Amino acid sequence: MALMGAGVSLGLSTQQLRIDVGGRISRYIRLRRIFRMTERYLEDFAVGQTYGSGRFQIDEKRIKSFASEFDPQPFHLDAAAAQHTIFHGLVASGWHTAAVTMRLLVESELRPAGGIVGAGLDELRWPRPVRPGDELNIESEVLEVRHRSRVRTSG
Amino acid sequence: MALMGAGVSLGLSTQQLRIDVGGRISRYIRLRRIFRMTERYLEDFAVGQTYGSGRFQIDEKRIKSFASEFDPQPFHLDAAAAQHTIFHGLVASGWHTAAVTMRLLVESELRPAGGIVGAGLDELRWPRPVRPGDELNIESEVLEVRHRSRVRTSG
Repeated sequence: MALMGAGVSLGLSTQQLRIDVGGRISRYIRLRRIFRMTERYLEDFAVGQTYGSGRFQIDEKRIKSFASEFDPQPFHLDAAAAQHTIFHGLVASGWHTAAVTMRLLVESELRPAGGIVGAGLDELRWPRPVRPGDELNIESEVLEVRHRSRVRTSG
Repeated sequence: MALMGAGVSLGLSTQQLRIDVGGRISRYIRLRRIFRMTERYLEDFAVGQTYGSGRFQIDEKRIKSFASEFDPQPFHLDAAAAQHTIFHGLVASGWHTAAVTMRLLVESELRPAGGIVGAGLDELRWPRPVRPGDELNIESEVLEVRHRSRVRTSG
């Protein structure tokens, strides 16, 4: 699966991932329903493993409704107004793109037992705007696998 | 405005910010409608300036609907199922929290002319879970102000 765009690293409770998010993939394939696979445990992960994902097409109507709730700025809300902004057209909120990325990750083949739980990210990049009709897919790579004696869920 | 939680740095086209996101603030104040203030230009910003925000209460129903679209995992979808997870109860997706943070930022007193446009973030942290009824507010601080001869909108 082609890698486009810059890397996103998620610090997870049991492993680290690097996720590359692409935009503007030319062919449209509906986000495939991956049948539930057996969940993976810590011992199933090894550095260098990669996991693909389905594809998700970004829809103009959802760009606008997401933005009106979470990122109400002209370049996300209105195609005509967006022409006069830095983007010269309607673009998705980076948070919309990030949220779709999470959806693709959760439905990918990664499937760690206990779920995908992150304490944060280092280096999230939006290298180029995502426009209506663009498709996103992700590829994740296991960068590190480590045991933690205690997982902090607060503080 | 009290700072709680870890810092989020946004790299913006004209300045950098540090945004601290708090959870579980006790009093509920409806997200205030800030009347449109004059937009700020590069020369209006200086290192050390801070900007507050309104407050936003996280709603259980929206936690679930956001998760079902973007982060479909048991601890975000169903309070009973969430009891048996690492969180011992329903928690908001970190992407939901991040999106609400953007809303608070856009509606804050910061208001850079041209909008809040970021190429990415360094160091996003979710130090503790956000649960139904929790309130979020943000405080942003200008860490650096710099001119760029050319703003890249693609590539």
